[in-house]
Amino acid sequence: MDIVCVGSGNVATHLTKAFRVKGARIVQVYSPDISNANLLAKEIDALAISDLAELSQVADLYLIAVKDDAIATIAHKLNVVKGIVVHTSGATPMSVLADAGIQNYGVFYPLQTFSKSRDLNFSNVPLCLEAGNAEVLNRLKSLAETLSPLVYEIDGEKRRILHLSAVFASNFVNHLYHLGGEILAEHQIAFELLRPLILETAEKVQTRLPFDVQTGPAVRDDQETMKSHVSLLENRPDLQEIYKFLSKSIKKTHS
Amino acid sequence: MDIVCVGSGNVATHLTKAFRVKGARIVQVYSPDISNANLLAKEIDALAISDLAELSQVADLYLIAVKDDAIATIAHKLNVVKGIVVHTSGATPMSVLADAGIQNYGVFYPLQTFSKSRDLNFSNVPLCLEAGNAEVLNRLKSLAETLSPLVYEIDGEKRRILHLSAVFASNFVNHLYHLGGEILAEHQIAFELLRPLILETAEKVQTRLPFDVQTGPAVRDDQETMKSHVSLLENRPDLQEIYKFLSKSIKKTHS
Repeated sequence: MDIVCVGSGNVATHLTKAFRVKGARIVQVYSPDISNANLLAKEIDALAISDLAELSQVADLYLIAVKDDAIATIAHKLNVVKGIVVHTSGATPMSVLADAGIQNYGVFYPLQTFSKSRDLNFSNVPLCLEAGNAEVLNRLKSLAETLSPLVYEIDGEKRRILHLSAVFASNFVNHLYHLGGEILAEHQIAFELLRPLILETAEKVQTRLPFDVQTGPAVRDDQETMKSHVSLLENRPDLQEIYKFLSKSIKKTHS
Repeated sequence: MDIVCVGSGNVATHLTKAFRVKGARIVQVYSPDISNANLLAKEIDALAISDLAELSQVADLYLIAVKDDAIATIAHKLNVVKGIVVHTSGATPMSVLADAGIQNYGVFYPLQTFSKSRDLNFSNVPLCLEAGNAEVLNRLKSLAETLSPLVYEIDGEKRRILHLSAVFASNFVNHLYHLGGEILAEHQIAFELLRPLILETAEKVQTRLPFDVQTGPAVRDDQETMKSHVSLLENRPDLQEIYKFLSKSIKKTHS
């Protein structure tokens, strides 16, 4: 299987590396910035290109892993190829590919958070697929199953919902880790102390539902402690508001 | 070492089990509800009691692991013992023990989230200690080091700060997992799909700082996606508010 990767960011990097390990050949990596294309291309024995006119027309799969607002433009350059064209975006409908006149199209959305400098084991990454027709879907399924046993057929509406819920369960969560660390830093306490707690909190919900393992002053309706916490935050009105808001939401959920 | 445990909740259960594995003897478990005391006592070969007048006067350590607002009352029943009396609360000052007239007192605060039905490995739990004098502190340190290499001397003010930051990094985080799951449930999608993402988000910050690995529409200032997410939440104004508030906080942090 010959793959062309359009994009050189986190998703492009992790997906192409994983496909390559499974025996695919990455023939080209495109980025408008040739040095970015080169960085990834070197790692996966591909050719770096920075001009869309140079895109191979004969690859089996075209992976569009670029910023959401660039997908449509890229798609219009790919409406002559015979291979399957997929984007990897949670928030973008598949129709942008159809509308560009692409023949064989689909979506290959890995529900995970990617950082370039951290290796990722795909065998635990849910891969959410959508395709323009049954044949493309089957080919994408076969391909996805080489990477992970967690392969799901998810339409565009559900994909948007997954993407939104991931903002709550990952992006916002990471920000709360940061805010916890900020509170410590103001008192010269190292972030390190929070790490075991953070890990255990995530591990707990691997086998249970978060509703069933909620702890803390809000779920106990421990007014005394909540009042004391809010007053400890008196020089951080922004954190006071987040504290009150999320405590109220916990109480509402568990009342 | 003979230990009396006052309380039979999550912290009492995990701590006494861990001490027992390390060779301590748990002589009594107190709970006002004898059936609760019995449940734990059976597991750790202790005597269950429900009357504070029956408390052994000759134990080496008295572990007060009860709700914060019950600590002072319990402490007043323990001011005749020679052994060390500690509470395990992040939010309670050590002075409640001194004020009760206890001679040898301290705090033994494990910075972790405990669930009864989940086993916990203490070797990764930060144990935060405070004591009324150097001799008690040394004895608590020796004891703590049998459970975990992560032993810290933390005064009452810093302990309150740790407790507060744990609310952000654990209690609020768990609630965001729940909200992510609620969004999925409204569209008949299983919580399961979020689990790998949740775990990876926590594992990422075991070696990095959350500031450096923040992802998502807010840190990219991707207005388009944020607008679309808010409109997806139109029947959940409470979640819209949380979405806007946390997104604003992320933007502020990274601007």
